Amino acid sequence: MLSTDLYQFTMAAGYHAAQDGTNASFELFVRELPSSRNYLVTAGLEQALSVLAEWRYTRDEIQYLRSVPALRSAGPEFFDEYLPRLRFSGEVWAMAEGTPVFAGEPILRVTAPLEEAQLVETALLSTVLFQTSVASKAARVTDAAAGRPVMEFGGRRAHGVDAALFASRAAYLGGCSATSNVEAGYRFGIPVAGTMAHSWVMAHCDELTAFERDMALHGSDSVLLIDTYNSVTAAQKIVSAGLRPAAVRIDSGDLARVSVAVRSIFDAGPLSSTRILVSGDLDEHRVAALVASGAPIDGFGVGTALSTSVDAPALGGVYKLVEILREGTVTPVAKRSLGKQTLPGRKQVWRVGESSTAAYDVVGLATETAPPGGVPLLECVMRDGRRTGSAPRLCELRAACTSTRLTIPESVRRLSAPGPYPVTFSAALVELARKHRVEVARSGAPRDIG
Amino acid sequence: MLSTDLYQFTMAAGYHAAQDGTNASFELFVRELPSSRNYLVTAGLEQALSVLAEWRYTRDEIQYLRSVPALRSAGPEFFDEYLPRLRFSGEVWAMAEGTPVFAGEPILRVTAPLEEAQLVETALLSTVLFQTSVASKAARVTDAAAGRPVMEFGGRRAHGVDAALFASRAAYLGGCSATSNVEAGYRFGIPVAGTMAHSWVMAHCDELTAFERDMALHGSDSVLLIDTYNSVTAAQKIVSAGLRPAAVRIDSGDLARVSVAVRSIFDAGPLSSTRILVSGDLDEHRVAALVASGAPIDGFGVGTALSTSVDAPALGGVYKLVEILREGTVTPVAKRSLGKQTLPGRKQVWRVGESSTAAYDVVGLATETAPPGGVPLLECVMRDGRRTGSAPRLCELRAACTSTRLTIPESVRRLSAPGPYPVTFSAALVELARKHRVEVARSGAPRDIG
Repeated sequence: MLSTDLYQFTMAAGYHAAQDGTNASFELFVRELPSSRNYLVTAGLEQALSVLAEWRYTRDEIQYLRSVPALRSAGPEFFDEYLPRLRFSGEVWAMAEGTPVFAGEPILRVTAPLEEAQLVETALLSTVLFQTSVASKAARVTDAAAGRPVMEFGGRRAHGVDAALFASRAAYLGGCSATSNVEAGYRFGIPVAGTMAHSWVMAHCDELTAFERDMALHGSDSVLLIDTYNSVTAAQKIVSAGLRPAAVRIDSGDLARVSVAVRSIFDAGPLSSTRILVSGDLDEHRVAALVASGAPIDGFGVGTALSTSVDAPALGGVYKLVEILREGTVTPVAKRSLGKQTLPGRKQVWRVGESSTAAYDVVGLATETAPPGGVPLLECVMRDGRRTGSAPRLCELRAACTSTRLTIPESVRRLSAPGPYPVTFSAALVELARKHRVEVARSGAPRDIG
Repeated sequence: MLSTDLYQFTMAAGYHAAQDGTNASFELFVRELPSSRNYLVTAGLEQALSVLAEWRYTRDEIQYLRSVPALRSAGPEFFDEYLPRLRFSGEVWAMAEGTPVFAGEPILRVTAPLEEAQLVETALLSTVLFQTSVASKAARVTDAAAGRPVMEFGGRRAHGVDAALFASRAAYLGGCSATSNVEAGYRFGIPVAGTMAHSWVMAHCDELTAFERDMALHGSDSVLLIDTYNSVTAAQKIVSAGLRPAAVRIDSGDLARVSVAVRSIFDAGPLSSTRILVSGDLDEHRVAALVASGAPIDGFGVGTALSTSVDAPALGGVYKLVEILREGTVTPVAKRSLGKQTLPGRKQVWRVGESSTAAYDVVGLATETAPPGGVPLLECVMRDGRRTGSAPRLCELRAACTSTRLTIPESVRRLSAPGPYPVTFSAALVELARKHRVEVARSGAPRDIG
């Protein structure tokens, strides 16, 4: 597992050489939300924990590392003894997948020997941030669909086949009903959906033959794609030929107008039970507009917008050192770089409110007692490198996400002009941050408080 | 390898049931360039060919497919005989990786039994489009750096660990000098770069100790990160302590102003040979502005912008049926959906111009003779499911890309207000498309020409 930045190795080699048994806590959080997101939905934890649990260096990988110039100061013991035996031995606290989260709130915290905590940074960030961005987008799209099913169709535009797989998982977790990705069905048990492409229609001598052939194969489960030539003409052909597909899909054109025309042809057909699905460069805004228009649409297929979180393809997520434990002494630390300040100390996030509506969050120190009515969001999910308890089932995470998401006020979740959600910081955390700032300023040579 | 859309399987099962031995040609191209790209640089071909060469269905995967409701009409022969033995047996023509390409130009063409060509669509698209988007971004960023090295640092923000790996490959191919991704160094031989993070500085009792410790480990190769507290103060400390690092890195603040101040401290130091590297949310526009400002910057680290192609995270790439070969008859086909029209027939792309400057491209039928002075861009890379010749080395592809890219006129490559590059269509292709349109219109019931 060499998926890490080189500096993680150079630093790990340096820490290892010091042999001072330092433990460290790092927190993963999103510094600032993208302008098009008012909240995020966490995802990717199970894959992140798998990265930690399966973390090994093979003989060939270690041989490669020996050849890297930046690592030539590392002694033979690092390559011969340390790396071959290295296993993640630390502790992880994290929010359950599917939890709504806001800027500055730790999603995950690693406490481990400094070398280990450092080496896993890059993989943890890419794993958690990517799935979180897709789940967050899925929450918006499914909210916009107002109860109609949303199918994730974005595999072809995802950032490679693995990104396609995990995008499907995160989209389902965030609220989608199904995916077109067969691998995701196989690996995660997500319902799979989809029937024909334009090429099916084009590969037959004419459109009606293509439809009839599909009906012969799938019977009343058929979903016919009707926009290869002209959706309205195709709908008329379906009625004239006496076909009774389960649904049709329209993938281009003015979806609101065409769906009305097709619905009217079908209702006179009589194909009143044939559903109309639409797709084609949809996102939450287009879905919301179609729903608002009253168009007779029964479901949405959404691709690129979901699988790449296209309007916010990267989250400003970071993994920052917050505390050092060395020779029995705990030292909270923080970064002071201009515009990139962090808050020192291991933290907890409490959500406060009624069971049906969250009112505000409190970010405080992990050692504090909960504020009245506050429910802690971070829980211990790995100890001594082993998962505590068993991994929840994806469908249960999805169900929990759907209900938890609705505890976030509608004003915060809405697509346009959303309202703010209050995230406050505990008095103890504010005071620790102040002491840290004063200490850094007072020391002349900037240094961490001890 | 179930990384495909479900409808590819339902269609493949349908084609297989028909048993009519139909062969088909599909072309992969980008319909329209993102507004922030004036040309693309192809990448991902080797991984796409690996997908084809290694394509297998395991017993467990086939068992899963049997359980999928949409496939229940497929007969037992499909699962028992066809899928277990399925191997890609087709032909692939493609542009060499690193080729500049424009909208509408086929990057890759698959000719194979219809089932096979259909089943591989999703994986081919995600593999080629993702790497192409990153290589295209890398070309812009390295152009902007005007000869200064650009290091790709974007793993942590990539769409998962595999996307991080292939983003590194594509970024290097597109012109970057190195990557921080160790896996990419191991797998592809890309030079790896990077030395310390802010956490290294924060984990030591003070900044100078962190620097001294790094110098002790890396000697004159040290690259010190100087912005954890204050870059200018840190530069003064380095000089006062008599340290002689190879370079420093500034990751925040006003990079132009701070680099000038640091350079002046170092030149008086005397650390005139210590280079200044900068990073922190850079993209081609910020790099170009820093270069234009005359800031004494010797190299750039670029992360998210590269690894996610953040301003154009998805290309409007498609894989379209263009020709059917059935019972000895070749039938060019095209899609007529509103706004999604395609051109029929197997195509070739010729680049016309002097050896040092491309003047225009001609897209014509593959069966045509080349226009005068035209160099064909598509070549046969796989026949009967086997790669023709051996895979080029990545460093050779990168070198070829760097020189080929410069044959595209500067007016087309520039970042702001780029000029157009002419892509024309041959008379034969235009005539075939016209005949196809007329035929579809004349047939009343839309149909393909025979």
